[in-house]
Amino acid sequence: MDYALFKRISKVTLGKEKADLVLKGGRIVDVFTNEIHTADLAIKDGIIAGIGTYYEGEEEIDMSGKYIMPGFIDSHLHLESTMVTPNELVTIAAGCGTTTFIVDPHEAANVSGTAGIDYILKQTEASPANVYVMMPSCVPATDIDDNGCELTAAKMKPYLKESRILGLGEVMNDPGVVYGDKKLHEKLRLFAGRPIDGHAPFLAGDELSAYALAGIMTDHESTSYDYAMEEVRRGIHVHIREGSAAHNLEAIVKGIVKNHIPVDNFSFCTDDKHIEDILRDGHINYNVRRAVKLGIKPVDAIKMATINAARCYGLRDLGALAPGYQADIIACESLERFDITDVFHKGRRLDKDSSPKVLPCDGELKNTVHLSPVSKDIFVLPIKDKTAHVIGIDASQITTKHTIKRLGNTDNYIPKNGLNKIAAIERHKGTGKVGVGICSHYGISGGAIASSVSHDSHNIIVVGDNDEDMAIAVNEIIRAQGGYTLVEKGKVYDTLPLPIMGLMSDAGFSEVNKKLQRMIKKAHQMGIPDEVEPYITLSFMALPVIAEIRITPRGLFDVNAFKFIDKQG
Amino acid sequence: MDYALFKRISKVTLGKEKADLVLKGGRIVDVFTNEIHTADLAIKDGIIAGIGTYYEGEEEIDMSGKYIMPGFIDSHLHLESTMVTPNELVTIAAGCGTTTFIVDPHEAANVSGTAGIDYILKQTEASPANVYVMMPSCVPATDIDDNGCELTAAKMKPYLKESRILGLGEVMNDPGVVYGDKKLHEKLRLFAGRPIDGHAPFLAGDELSAYALAGIMTDHESTSYDYAMEEVRRGIHVHIREGSAAHNLEAIVKGIVKNHIPVDNFSFCTDDKHIEDILRDGHINYNVRRAVKLGIKPVDAIKMATINAARCYGLRDLGALAPGYQADIIACESLERFDITDVFHKGRRLDKDSSPKVLPCDGELKNTVHLSPVSKDIFVLPIKDKTAHVIGIDASQITTKHTIKRLGNTDNYIPKNGLNKIAAIERHKGTGKVGVGICSHYGISGGAIASSVSHDSHNIIVVGDNDEDMAIAVNEIIRAQGGYTLVEKGKVYDTLPLPIMGLMSDAGFSEVNKKLQRMIKKAHQMGIPDEVEPYITLSFMALPVIAEIRITPRGLFDVNAFKFIDKQG
Repeated sequence: MDYALFKRISKVTLGKEKADLVLKGGRIVDVFTNEIHTADLAIKDGIIAGIGTYYEGEEEIDMSGKYIMPGFIDSHLHLESTMVTPNELVTIAAGCGTTTFIVDPHEAANVSGTAGIDYILKQTEASPANVYVMMPSCVPATDIDDNGCELTAAKMKPYLKESRILGLGEVMNDPGVVYGDKKLHEKLRLFAGRPIDGHAPFLAGDELSAYALAGIMTDHESTSYDYAMEEVRRGIHVHIREGSAAHNLEAIVKGIVKNHIPVDNFSFCTDDKHIEDILRDGHINYNVRRAVKLGIKPVDAIKMATINAARCYGLRDLGALAPGYQADIIACESLERFDITDVFHKGRRLDKDSSPKVLPCDGELKNTVHLSPVSKDIFVLPIKDKTAHVIGIDASQITTKHTIKRLGNTDNYIPKNGLNKIAAIERHKGTGKVGVGICSHYGISGGAIASSVSHDSHNIIVVGDNDEDMAIAVNEIIRAQGGYTLVEKGKVYDTLPLPIMGLMSDAGFSEVNKKLQRMIKKAHQMGIPDEVEPYITLSFMALPVIAEIRITPRGLFDVNAFKFIDKQG
Repeated sequence: MDYALFKRISKVTLGKEKADLVLKGGRIVDVFTNEIHTADLAIKDGIIAGIGTYYEGEEEIDMSGKYIMPGFIDSHLHLESTMVTPNELVTIAAGCGTTTFIVDPHEAANVSGTAGIDYILKQTEASPANVYVMMPSCVPATDIDDNGCELTAAKMKPYLKESRILGLGEVMNDPGVVYGDKKLHEKLRLFAGRPIDGHAPFLAGDELSAYALAGIMTDHESTSYDYAMEEVRRGIHVHIREGSAAHNLEAIVKGIVKNHIPVDNFSFCTDDKHIEDILRDGHINYNVRRAVKLGIKPVDAIKMATINAARCYGLRDLGALAPGYQADIIACESLERFDITDVFHKGRRLDKDSSPKVLPCDGELKNTVHLSPVSKDIFVLPIKDKTAHVIGIDASQITTKHTIKRLGNTDNYIPKNGLNKIAAIERHKGTGKVGVGICSHYGISGGAIASSVSHDSHNIIVVGDNDEDMAIAVNEIIRAQGGYTLVEKGKVYDTLPLPIMGLMSDAGFSEVNKKLQRMIKKAHQMGIPDEVEPYITLSFMALPVIAEIRITPRGLFDVNAFKFIDKQG
């Protein structure tokens, strides 16, 4: 601590001067001893000066009857996924008591490289919470990806000096880790001694051991208690994930409770949680509430949301209430409901009723669809030998089914019988790479749907039942410089522009949500089944690491065999 | 981890090559999950490659029936205190299962500054254990000390690059911390972000808060459960001490057990433990055994001795058994007795029967008594006003009693009625400073006793009943360049030379111990009561921070008033 700062704060600690703020008579949750005791908490210059029974402050707030805890920590999330600007998500989640976010700007980096990371850092500089960044480790995600930028160890190196860059982000290339990919291991060495996040949902025992051996320290992909325990036994800290799509908490927590496992090596994360879900259920406080309901002791659940995560990431002044700790403090009235009534970040009270600020974005990042308008000819799909490989969409899973359908030979396949054409168009470097294929169980009819949000490379993905509307949809995405669009019978029905890297809107959450709901409704009217979320489903169709078959700008890809079926690019 | 190393070890992890060593079928204690499960543990290149049921090794050792644990960690100790060379102590304690030592070379630094620290680092480089060094923070201990060297922040700075320098050693100058001494805070800032050890046995509530606020992270001076809890509540990690002199374990552990306090923020240390005590009772395994006996669950006690300490000091590859962790492994047959049967450091088995090596010491460090022979005239002590301040020695305490005795006026006091003369003679810089006083309840008669071990400045301390023998004793210490001596009626009875900085012998433990026991016996015969340990008692008489009265080379010092009674220097 800076000397002058120490001198100022210690005067409050020693009772010689008034604090800036004293929270009076709350029930302080002590994550070091598991005690709850009633005391005053004194804050000076954004830092906890002392906890006792005699502090006076310039401002004093009566906290009697409330539980006072350290602010919660989301150990792993992606800010880009909600399609709003980073500060909006952070501010809304902070209102639920999450005061620290460990973010991985994997999507931004895939589009705009280090400029995308700089954007996330800059946008969250003045947010009412701590936002730390893990350097995206796998950009591009695979060797067969056509993304916007390659993030090499050399490009990462200057970021080691940035105080908000904590470590290396989720290392998804687990074969690269386990079997010693040189370029990837360069990155691991670069971040040696710092936190390195993992992503390994399906590793076998000895491969998981090799993954840990390489220095991977966390994982948030455990979906079962047994797998989580396999990780913890190998020294891997498990972030129990409960987000919009992934619901892993119940399975893991039930096992912990049943088997009396200590919670030291577990934290919480959301990974991806949409704003509408946060507004309805809460954020990390939802994970805490659920864990307590399933039998974790309240203070243990609070520790998982605070000190455990802080220790995991070496954040020494976060995650506890004690002298010298940052005054990130939250309060609630019930250790069952965990409805957060008060949030303080660096000793400043968060105004939960004010709308979060939408911060402007620089020009370059709003100009990332580097593609000239296309003609319908790019969607021509000849069929020979009367068969075609078809992507079978499964409404309940992120995985797809690889089927082979008998169809008539043709110079250009025309979709019918509920099938659609699907295409992925490279949009970062204007390479002209276009992959075209057929998908089933999506069912759009009389038009096309397109998006620039398409994991992990975020090329343009489009599905339709005719080439003309597919071209209109793609050209509309180009015009808007990214977004979601829906085309019906030759005309654009509506477009949600996502001009920031083709991933985010700067129109504000309520505007985005209103338009999105209208477009989703229309998409269902055009034939997409109710159980299929039109745009999220679309966003995974080009992801070549999830089984069984995907479309990429280089053509159809057999994930299980890890090779192209029909290389066109 | 280095890439080539990863490639080599991962082949073992993945079952493609044989391990160097496999410990077969032991009961592995998992400090992450609190489980104990039977498995093989494979080691390659000194690192744990994997834990499973199928490993093969070039060497295999049957461990059936034994408990396999991570090597224990002594969180705080001083190697100099046993008077033998560092490698001897480390090797003997390693035989009891302590494979990591967090040492504070406070004594060596007080005599020889950074050269003393370099000595400790060098001597332990090839020891069969990890020896990490905390930079001594308070050298000299106070402004009124006459020691060998001032260790400023500037002198410490180059050591930040040394991988075995972990952080800042016990900050004993607690008023300096609490009330903002600038030079001390410079050191705290220099080590910001690294571990900073405390030493604060008696701080009041808000002073303890200010101590924590300043960034002090640990303390090993808690003697009661209540005080330990006051520290833990403030985020201070408590090292529960059980050494030769201090026995704090029972009081603290009983409280932990009674109040169901989690053990996360507790570790173990010895601080000072003599080799004869280690050989009789054990080292950190003794702390573990005692804790279990008092009701701590065995795996929790093991965690306190391993992962808790490793996390406290940021030692990421120590304190657990998992892939990538250093193969510091110990075994025992009972989780009650904790008699350690096997010790491996970096995968190499410690030969418990071989004698520890005594490593040679360079010339400069064996020439640290910079003082010309003295005459008896330096001990002249006039008495005016018929009174004298007397140091009352208390056999059962390190504290002394400040009494004022009525004596006859004289130009040079001659001891009688069980009183002695006591003197402290500056020996580092030949300043000629000599403080002379009177002490009671030590009782040597017909001679003198002297030592160059005298906390914290390690000047020469001498007690006798006549000036002639006191001069002979001091001159013998000068001749031997440090040590313990005993003089009877004008002749040196015997001397234990401690030529290494005047603190340690390089003659080997058994030689040292034999001579020491003989001299102690004789000292008691010369009148020192059985309950007074002659040399250890002597070594605290010049320590001006422990109440109530001390002798320093500058004269008698009233510790309570923190001022000299009779400044002579």
